[in-house]
Amino acid sequence: MEENVILLDHGSGGKIAHRLTTGLLLPALENPLLAQLNDGAVLEIGNSRLAFSTDTFTVDPIFFPGGDIGELAVNGTVNDLAMCGAKPLYLSLALIMEEGLPLDDLKKIMASIRRAADKAGVQVVTGDTKVVPRAAADKIFINTSGIGVIPEGIDIGGQRATVGDKVIISGTMADHGITVMLQRQEMSFETNIKSDTAALNHMVTRLLAAAPGVHVLRDPTRGGVGTTLNEIAQQAGVGIRIREEALPLDPEVAGVCELLGFDPLYLANEGKLLCLVPAAQAEAALEAICQDPCGRKAAIIGEVVDDHPGRVVLETAIGGRRIIDMLAGEQLPRIC
Amino acid sequence: MEENVILLDHGSGGKIAHRLTTGLLLPALENPLLAQLNDGAVLEIGNSRLAFSTDTFTVDPIFFPGGDIGELAVNGTVNDLAMCGAKPLYLSLALIMEEGLPLDDLKKIMASIRRAADKAGVQVVTGDTKVVPRAAADKIFINTSGIGVIPEGIDIGGQRATVGDKVIISGTMADHGITVMLQRQEMSFETNIKSDTAALNHMVTRLLAAAPGVHVLRDPTRGGVGTTLNEIAQQAGVGIRIREEALPLDPEVAGVCELLGFDPLYLANEGKLLCLVPAAQAEAALEAICQDPCGRKAAIIGEVVDDHPGRVVLETAIGGRRIIDMLAGEQLPRIC
Repeated sequence: MEENVILLDHGSGGKIAHRLTTGLLLPALENPLLAQLNDGAVLEIGNSRLAFSTDTFTVDPIFFPGGDIGELAVNGTVNDLAMCGAKPLYLSLALIMEEGLPLDDLKKIMASIRRAADKAGVQVVTGDTKVVPRAAADKIFINTSGIGVIPEGIDIGGQRATVGDKVIISGTMADHGITVMLQRQEMSFETNIKSDTAALNHMVTRLLAAAPGVHVLRDPTRGGVGTTLNEIAQQAGVGIRIREEALPLDPEVAGVCELLGFDPLYLANEGKLLCLVPAAQAEAALEAICQDPCGRKAAIIGEVVDDHPGRVVLETAIGGRRIIDMLAGEQLPRIC
Repeated sequence: MEENVILLDHGSGGKIAHRLTTGLLLPALENPLLAQLNDGAVLEIGNSRLAFSTDTFTVDPIFFPGGDIGELAVNGTVNDLAMCGAKPLYLSLALIMEEGLPLDDLKKIMASIRRAADKAGVQVVTGDTKVVPRAAADKIFINTSGIGVIPEGIDIGGQRATVGDKVIISGTMADHGITVMLQRQEMSFETNIKSDTAALNHMVTRLLAAAPGVHVLRDPTRGGVGTTLNEIAQQAGVGIRIREEALPLDPEVAGVCELLGFDPLYLANEGKLLCLVPAAQAEAALEAICQDPCGRKAAIIGEVVDDHPGRVVLETAIGGRRIIDMLAGEQLPRIC
């Protein structure tokens, strides 16, 4: 293994990626706003509290069951803003295209971007286009950055996870990860599995109205639920316990995972959120999420505990316990 | 020529790029904020007027005399915000790295980013990192997006160009374009030419204090001074006349241009601005720009006229006139 170069693992969202972030990137840029490590930065400008976030999408293939790179790029940044408790308002759109990209593909992607933006209620207000020669990029990469406004009284962040909080997931795990994987491996599975890519901001609005005391929101994308819960446990210095039986999983996704030996806890989701909320508001929060079209299979999957700070523990179906570590390396590059 | 695919020309910042933007990208996203086509969008949030801008950098090589891709990425977005009359405050930073990028290169780039951000007085507050397999990207691409605050009373935009305005350039043309070109062609010219990459926000602050009536600010990057002036002429429906003799040019850059047959009017600048200002404030504006370390060679190069609306005309040194069209295609891909 070459130790002095960037590896695919550095992009995994897992342990090695975290080492790059905390060991090289953050120290170079060190400032208190960046160091919070939430899905977006929270900025005070004038009389407003704004959330500001950025995400680049390099997914391969660019079209897949349930969506495409354009829809993913809008929903990804909308969700990062929503996870700060913000109402997403404005997006930027920056394209890097490879010479030779069919214009029809670009048109389809632009139409998806428009549809997704309309659905989320955001506007693309500024943009940039770069073209690089053949083989200097693969088809198209999309960056979106976004601005949202955080309503008064809302204070959400990984560091707020508190012992006693219930952990809610808004639906089934691993749908996006398995969808892309099946496309990439060109396997001839006959399945109905499709990406869960969706904007979650309307769900968050509903959720915060019903349960204004929410402590943490996070969308478990790269690295999956397992890695995201670890991040939260480390940010807040608390333990998190989840129950295997409670984890929602589409039966087809479960089947593919079992067949191929993948752990759905580490696969990417693109339309799911994790919510940590005081126990007293947990039922109200769950009900609000379930009322959203994207939240019908939501479930309470665990709680924050004062045991094993910084660690996530899974209670297995047969009564055992196993530590859920962060994903170490890369399961599949270019998942989003 | 394949007509149904993306061509390098689509990334040039010239005519073909404009056709892509106005024919395909803007119609897909259509909204009034985006359609203004300035360097950034101007947004009203709470009691603040914000500028929001995005830019991706794919420059090849990533290190060049006078700077590197990291410095370019900070200065580029800082300048886009400053050209809206905004005080740049916060940046996002999104990296796409190719597997195999030397960590030492990444460290150097991150150090440049930090230095450039400190110099401009902005903070990088949120980020994203993606890694793609070898040959799916070339070394590193960087997107920065930024937020700035526009002070009260400032109203700057291409559409405000007014007959009688003087046109000022803040220094010599084409330094960045020629620098990258000489690196890329691996020519053994012995020159002292280096990129002009610099943050212009401090210059703009000084300029607006001295000449608050400024109508237009624009940094002539891809496509150069010629293309940028055409954009302004078209946005405002006015003519622009410039004098060849007045155009500042480094003698070495002029020499290389002559030797290789390049027109410096179409080459990229990364630390220069064009300012259109009412004649009564033009001297004050020029003096303020000249006081800035990056503005010592600033000059009044022409004026806005009511002849030939939408067109830029050059008065040549020998007394002739020639229409300066937009750059059509690409002089050199991956210039920024």
